[in-house]
Amino acid sequence: MKVSELSRRARVPVPTIKFYLREGLLPGGATTGRNQADYSEAHLERLELIRALKEEAGLSLETIARCLRAADANKRHFVTAAIDAIERYSGRPVDARSAAYRSAVSQVAAVCRKRGWNVSARDASVKDAARALCAIQRSFPYTDDERTLRAYFDAAELLAQNEVPEGWTPEDAPAGSLRFAILGTVLFEPFLLALRRAAHVSRTRSTP
Amino acid sequence: MKVSELSRRARVPVPTIKFYLREGLLPGGATTGRNQADYSEAHLERLELIRALKEEAGLSLETIARCLRAADANKRHFVTAAIDAIERYSGRPVDARSAAYRSAVSQVAAVCRKRGWNVSARDASVKDAARALCAIQRSFPYTDDERTLRAYFDAAELLAQNEVPEGWTPEDAPAGSLRFAILGTVLFEPFLLALRRAAHVSRTRSTP
Repeated sequence: MKVSELSRRARVPVPTIKFYLREGLLPGGATTGRNQADYSEAHLERLELIRALKEEAGLSLETIARCLRAADANKRHFVTAAIDAIERYSGRPVDARSAAYRSAVSQVAAVCRKRGWNVSARDASVKDAARALCAIQRSFPYTDDERTLRAYFDAAELLAQNEVPEGWTPEDAPAGSLRFAILGTVLFEPFLLALRRAAHVSRTRSTP
Repeated sequence: MKVSELSRRARVPVPTIKFYLREGLLPGGATTGRNQADYSEAHLERLELIRALKEEAGLSLETIARCLRAADANKRHFVTAAIDAIERYSGRPVDARSAAYRSAVSQVAAVCRKRGWNVSARDASVKDAARALCAIQRSFPYTDDERTLRAYFDAAELLAQNEVPEGWTPEDAPAGSLRFAILGTVLFEPFLLALRRAAHVSRTRSTP
């Protein structure tokens, strides 16, 4: 289809499509002439995915681009690559060369390894966890934190087991799988945090 | 002590202290003369708490003020009131008068009640959870979501049980308890989200 038809069907204005093409969020169409290209159903799916991530999850275009590029660059594990690329650390910046940060990375990676998680210190999620742990340890410099940290790993495992069932494989439709994985990851985050606060409120309120 | 001594000991400039006084973040001192007031150790503690929440947790002054006012207004459960006032919903805004939102509030409150949580639809954390649930249901309009949601309540319960031990009571020092509760709530949030992503990455990567 021509770009005008793509625009109409995806309900995305042509200038926005051209912007996505320039930024690499949308792969180019097959060239059919000077200034003309042919777009496929895959382009339409991709455009709808970008719209969903922007409007439903409120992700920045920068984050969307990073997730989609990561998925494109890793055909075999495109969903995994996209989730890891979400990278949404919202705490205070941490110096990646500091001893505290490097020690936190080792600490998180070691617990993951002990639990048999298939992640390493190269994963963005592990780095994000280490950044957060750095900030925690700066404010609460207790040493015997094994028990508190363990509950967090347990909770994360519980959630992942429920959301990625044994034997899960991405659907045949990459856009559908990406939508499910990225939106699912992002939309459930505020839900989890609010419930944790509710559980805290409940327990502190119940004390004498 | 005089405001100048308070400023020196808390390492907070006098104009900032005056701003906090005007905004109600810091209670006024005992008047000792025209334009003179006497400040106590409690003022110093409060100032140090504000600095910690701003610098360590990166909270906005607006959020800090809301938490401290909530704590001040509820002497008996000041920690609970402060946690509930954190209110950090980061998703897309939700119309509080919509049927979808009201239904989500009832749904969350009902599950909390069934689990014996001491919270209600009036709590900010329950409202935040309902807002997040609204956004989830808009994107994933499945009906049989009991199982997925249950894992989130389980995870929240697990964390709260670890962080608020049975028989917990706030310390004698209100500033210490508030610092622990507010900072602990906020600093562990990015840690939890990053670990959840790591667990997802691990599980999706392990599929064939």
